[in-house]
Amino acid sequence: MIRKAEAADFDAIWPLLHDVFRAGDTYAVDPAISKEDALRYWTGGVACYVVEDARGIIGTYYIKTNQAGGGAHICNCGYIVAPAARGQGLAAKMCVHSQNAARALGYLAMQFNFVLASNTGAVQLWHRLGFTTVGTIPDAFAHPAQGFVDAYVMHKRLSD
Amino acid sequence: MIRKAEAADFDAIWPLLHDVFRAGDTYAVDPAISKEDALRYWTGGVACYVVEDARGIIGTYYIKTNQAGGGAHICNCGYIVAPAARGQGLAAKMCVHSQNAARALGYLAMQFNFVLASNTGAVQLWHRLGFTTVGTIPDAFAHPAQGFVDAYVMHKRLSD
Repeated sequence: MIRKAEAADFDAIWPLLHDVFRAGDTYAVDPAISKEDALRYWTGGVACYVVEDARGIIGTYYIKTNQAGGGAHICNCGYIVAPAARGQGLAAKMCVHSQNAARALGYLAMQFNFVLASNTGAVQLWHRLGFTTVGTIPDAFAHPAQGFVDAYVMHKRLSD
Repeated sequence: MIRKAEAADFDAIWPLLHDVFRAGDTYAVDPAISKEDALRYWTGGVACYVVEDARGIIGTYYIKTNQAGGGAHICNCGYIVAPAARGQGLAAKMCVHSQNAARALGYLAMQFNFVLASNTGAVQLWHRLGFTTVGTIPDAFAHPAQGFVDAYVMHKRLSD
């Protein structure tokens, strides 16, 4: 059900990215980003996975190296669930899968650089999955409905 | 003394970048980065400045937009002082200059994403210049001499 994305999946991944980026209320991405740039942003990292069922691709996540040089032992991930597949625990499943994939790649920790305080479901989920809030950037994001909201830096060690 | 960098300055900027990146103990940049990639990293943002005196270019800094989309009102900067010009307050001068330049560009805040705890001089300087530590990423950087060290996220509002 969760497998590595291939180039043949890109046309099915794009609608998921498009919905979330155009809304402009969760990711720090230009809402007007092109399909090409969005796919490069999402699939151009170290690994990209998709979640597939009878309906097609219903979720996707990426793994990137968060910083170069001496910071390259920490990865960053992003997750998107298709609207029709929300509320079924898919983000949690992808996050657990991504932690195992990141461990297999040799990463020692996972970091989310920009979790919006307004995205309360995500904040709660990441806490439940063992992430710690290690930073709070004040008024980091101009939310289209809520004005300036804080963003959290969240972190989890992948090794003991 | 502080002016915008031009393409003709790039050959004089490169030795400053080379020294710092090759040392691999302050910036999260691959120590083996090429001249071309290093110059793109340093000069490819919104603005790049150099500090010049009779000796030539003795310092340089950049301004970038730190996050896209709803995060684009916060900038990021990086500063390098030539070895021969250290200990003379040049980093502070560049930082104050960059805050004014960033205000003129419309940024509402400045953020440093990755200030190493081992870089105590920088941490003290940024605090003295009004930056607040808003995050601490544990063991964020594999320091060549000190092993894993924490990195701070530091932030300063540029408007009232």
